[in-house]
Amino acid sequence: MALFSMKLENLQQLFVKELRDLYDAENQITEALPKLIDAAHNTELKSALREHLQITKQQISRLDQIFQKLNQKPTGETCKGMKGVIKEGDEIVSAGGDPSTVDAGLISAAQRVEHYEMAGYGTVRTYAKLLGQEEMARLLQQTLDEEEEADQKLSEIANSVNVEAKAA
Amino acid sequence: MALFSMKLENLQQLFVKELRDLYDAENQITEALPKLIDAAHNTELKSALREHLQITKQQISRLDQIFQKLNQKPTGETCKGMKGVIKEGDEIVSAGGDPSTVDAGLISAAQRVEHYEMAGYGTVRTYAKLLGQEEMARLLQQTLDEEEEADQKLSEIANSVNVEAKAA
Repeated sequence: MALFSMKLENLQQLFVKELRDLYDAENQITEALPKLIDAAHNTELKSALREHLQITKQQISRLDQIFQKLNQKPTGETCKGMKGVIKEGDEIVSAGGDPSTVDAGLISAAQRVEHYEMAGYGTVRTYAKLLGQEEMARLLQQTLDEEEEADQKLSEIANSVNVEAKAA
Repeated sequence: MALFSMKLENLQQLFVKELRDLYDAENQITEALPKLIDAAHNTELKSALREHLQITKQQISRLDQIFQKLNQKPTGETCKGMKGVIKEGDEIVSAGGDPSTVDAGLISAAQRVEHYEMAGYGTVRTYAKLLGQEEMARLLQQTLDEEEEADQKLSEIANSVNVEAKAA
C-alpha cells in the first residue's frame, strides 16, 4: 500500500485502495516469476511456475475489468508487502547450492506469495459482496480459487523435492 | 530471509534458515502490534490484537525451545517479507480517518500477517516431520493452529466492522 496523505473514509474507498495494492502486487509477481522459473531445476516446478505466470496475467486482466467498472485507475499504490516477499525468493535464487534444496526454498518463497495473495483477495472479495458488487465478487473469487489451487500444486511438488533435499 | 553468501546445502540447513526467518518475523510482530492495538477503535479488535501479542510471545518461546534442541542460535536472518507486510499496517495507522474504515484496514493488514505466517509455519512443520523431528513438528503445528484461529477470529470481527465502514 502506498504512503498516502488521504484519510480512509469508507469501505468503498478502502476497496479501491486494496484493489490497487493487489494490482501492483500482481505486476511485481509478473516481473519476478521469470527469474524463479529460470532458477528452478525440477521440471514439474518449472512448469507450474510457468503456468502461474500465465494465470497471473489473466488475474491482472480481471482486475483491469473491475477498475473499468469502477471507473477508477488501477495505479497509485505500491504493495510493500509483496516487495518484501519477492525479495525472499530473489535471495534463494542468489544463494544457489544443491538443486533440490534450492527448489525447496523456491517453493517455500512461492507459497508465501500465494498465501499473501489469498489474504488480499479474500478481503476484497468480502468487500465486493458487502458493497453489492456481485460480478466483481465473482471475478475476485475466481482468482482466489486459482491462488489456492496454485498453493496446493506447490505442496504436491514439495513432497518429492523435499525428500530429495533431505538426502542431499 | 537474510542476504547470505552461504549456499543452500540440504533440507536440514534450509529448515534452520527458515526457522530463523520466522523468529525474526515474530519479533517484528511483537514490536509492531502495540501500535496497531493503540490505533484500533473496536474493543473486540483491540482485545483480539492484545491477545495475539501474548500468543506471539509464546510462539517465540516455542521457537527458542526448538533452537535449543537443534543447538543453533535463533538470530542471523531478517525477514524482509514481514518487514513489508508490517509497513502496510503502519500506513493504515498513519492514514487515520473514519474509525470503522481504519479498523477494517487494520484487520486486512493483520490477516496478511497471519497468512504469511501460516505459509511459513506450514513449511517448517513439513520439514520437521520429514527430518524425523516429531516434537518440533508438534510445536510448529501448535503455532500454525493458533495462526489459523487468529485469522478466523479477525474474519468474525470484520463481519461487523466492515458493515459499519460501508455505512460511513
